[in-house]
Amino acid sequence: MARSFRFLTFLSDYGLEDEFVGVCRGVIKRFAPQVEILDIAHGIPPQDVRAGATVLAQAVPYMPPAVHLAVVDPGVGTGRRAVVIGTKNGPVLVGPDNGLLYPAAMALGGVEQVFAITNRDLWLPTPSRTFHGRDIFAPIAARLALGLDPEAVGPSIDPGELMELSHAAAVVDDDHVHAQVVQIDHFGNLQLNVIKAELEAIGVLEGDRLEARVNGRSFHPRYGKAFSEVTRGDLVVLEDAYKSMTLAANQASAEDLVEARRGDRVVLARMHQS
Amino acid sequence: MARSFRFLTFLSDYGLEDEFVGVCRGVIKRFAPQVEILDIAHGIPPQDVRAGATVLAQAVPYMPPAVHLAVVDPGVGTGRRAVVIGTKNGPVLVGPDNGLLYPAAMALGGVEQVFAITNRDLWLPTPSRTFHGRDIFAPIAARLALGLDPEAVGPSIDPGELMELSHAAAVVDDDHVHAQVVQIDHFGNLQLNVIKAELEAIGVLEGDRLEARVNGRSFHPRYGKAFSEVTRGDLVVLEDAYKSMTLAANQASAEDLVEARRGDRVVLARMHQS
Amino acid sequence: MARSFRFLTFLSDYGLEDEFVGVCRGVIKRFAPQVEILDIAHGIPPQDVRAGATVLAQAVPYMPPAVHLAVVDPGVGTGRRAVVIGTKNGPVLVGPDNGLLYPAAMALGGVEQVFAITNRDLWLPTPSRTFHGRDIFAPIAARLALGLDPEAVGPSIDPGELMELSHAAAVVDDDHVHAQVVQIDHFGNLQLNVIKAELEAIGVLEGDRLEARVNGRSFHPRYGKAFSEVTRGDLVVLEDAYKSMTLAANQASAEDLVEARRGDRVVLARMHQS
Repeated sequence: MARSFRFLTFLSDYGLEDEFVGVCRGVIKRFAPQVEILDIAHGIPPQDVRAGATVLAQAVPYMPPAVHLAVVDPGVGTGRRAVVIGTKNGPVLVGPDNGLLYPAAMALGGVEQVFAITNRDLWLPTPSRTFHGRDIFAPIAARLALGLDPEAVGPSIDPGELMELSHAAAVVDDDHVHAQVVQIDHFGNLQLNVIKAELEAIGVLEGDRLEARVNGRSFHPRYGKAFSEVTRGDLVVLEDAYKSMTLAANQASAEDLVEARRGDRVVLARMHQS
Repeated sequence: MARSFRFLTFLSDYGLEDEFVGVCRGVIKRFAPQVEILDIAHGIPPQDVRAGATVLAQAVPYMPPAVHLAVVDPGVGTGRRAVVIGTKNGPVLVGPDNGLLYPAAMALGGVEQVFAITNRDLWLPTPSRTFHGRDIFAPIAARLALGLDPEAVGPSIDPGELMELSHAAAVVDDDHVHAQVVQIDHFGNLQLNVIKAELEAIGVLEGDRLEARVNGRSFHPRYGKAFSEVTRGDLVVLEDAYKSMTLAANQASAEDLVEARRGDRVVLARMHQS
Repeated sequence: MARSFRFLTFLSDYGLEDEFVGVCRGVIKRFAPQVEILDIAHGIPPQDVRAGATVLAQAVPYMPPAVHLAVVDPGVGTGRRAVVIGTKNGPVLVGPDNGLLYPAAMALGGVEQVFAITNRDLWLPTPSRTFHGRDIFAPIAARLALGLDPEAVGPSIDPGELMELSHAAAVVDDDHVHAQVVQIDHFGNLQLNVIKAELEAIGVLEGDRLEARVNGRSFHPRYGKAFSEVTRGDLVVLEDAYKSMTLAANQASAEDLVEARRGDRVVLARMHQS
């Protein structure tokens, strides 16, 4: 059941310094000159599949119907599977089967079909062992945008066999939440695996001070709604644009202030009156 | 008096690491698939409205007729106004009313009309408090490109109420000029708030050595026309591509050599023969 | 013998922080609204003509037929020549004559014709001395894409007069190869001026350990085919996507591990059994 797409989105950890992204764009345009490429992001930290998965899943609901090409691929050149995923909403995902695509497929209504990319006729001749974005994924994505039936890329796979990355859920205790930094953005905002209802379950209200313990240090962000509710340079915990609670700073980098990294634990608690 | 635009330019401090810019592109393309997005720059230092205003004003005269979307927005989510500015030359500017757009409007012939963005029917549903680029500005800009009448976005505002950032003018003294670094580019060139006539008013001629005092240190750049008039690594003061005098270095970063930041004072003087 | 091109590729050392690239895009689109711009890369290290030449030559074979605009131009504003090169395969190159374009011309079948850019009618009026990308190269490239005959830009030049940068060839000795780092990519992979046959001429087989001496230190990479053949953080020498041998690390930066820079010498040897 093939359909064509006007748009092809592209996310990677290739950076924009050298030719990786440009060469993939070139390959796509050689196969599909009319397809419009929409870059989602190319600054995913190198080989950080989890960060790529989060960014991709956050972005795809805002994109027009498209083939979504995503490459963060530490296992390139070895046995890791490459896949095309058809989603229930229609868009198609293309990339390595390492957990990168799964959350985006969920954000697009769930997995409808999965095909393993094995049909070498659709790849560039004599593909390298190091640059499958250029040699395998870009030519496949371009043809899918043109209307290639996904089942042409290779055999159907049970969706249950797709690789998924485990995600630590937040743990809500009586008066505190055990959270984790799941993403850090360009501004140094620390996105947590906590939603508003979980935070408020510990009995805090907007306007309250929180205690945030990170790597053995304590901070006291305000629980607010907008960055500029606090003094410049001060910390605030707010609901971000993807409905996650985020530890941020007004016109400053929470990442720098708190010295946190992706994956770090953050305990959020009510401030106790002394 | 609406018109449509083939092009929509986009400037922000969102960076290209994560999905901010990509998501705005997606939203624009969902509303206006045919509109062509031209990125001006997305590496404005975070929340640096002044830097964004300078870069935008320098760029717009070189762009085709367009809707110019610009977002550097430290006050997002609070009371700061959002505006659409119609310019005398035709192009339209969209963004926060914090001084970011005003110099660009001047560069496009001056302000013709201003409208406050208040019509929520034109926004994404339930907009976030942190990402108005996606939820408010992108959907408005896309529809303006399609031909939406700017007055549909909200009530007309007196252009005199637009926020303007004050700019320190250079002060020309007998044999020296008190200047300021207004912009630092990718190469570390330090753009000053001085034009050629002001510099030459202190009696210097091309080929002369100058004295430049910055943060308590003295440097001796040549007053020249091209980077490579001086030895590699040496300083030169020249007229840049926007007719501003710039303190630069040949194949090196004046920013690093002089250890200057945007806003720093620079006193340029004739070298006195001893 | 003019032809038009749907695509115009663009490579520079302008970075994406400020408006340089955006302004060139604007100028191109004012002359040629229909032409599609494909960015190859804009993060070439400032003024590093050699790095730009390597990246451009690697990329162009993967691009659709195009006008290739490239600007890494330490000599801007002085006497260095600007050129248009027609290649045997059809694509056209535009940029400074400083060695940047020559390897790409070779990759496109060789130089067919060269013209010096001297016809000021095709430039922006009163061009700056510092930003020929905007004032000279972009307007010329845009018109070439529209079908301007290259000979309109200025007088024909003997291809033998084009500037070429010398490249140190690898030296293969009995049991070791004297190599050089010719390019470092976003991941910190160190591309060497060595091909597989040269490396294997010293008697090594895939799976062997090598000795790599760089800046007085010794490392022991595996000679392999894919990054993930070695433990995370370990070094591997493999054939990269452009058929060059590359010193890389699995999910880490060889540049950081080895502390190498472009141009550094690397001696690769068979490990001697002790």
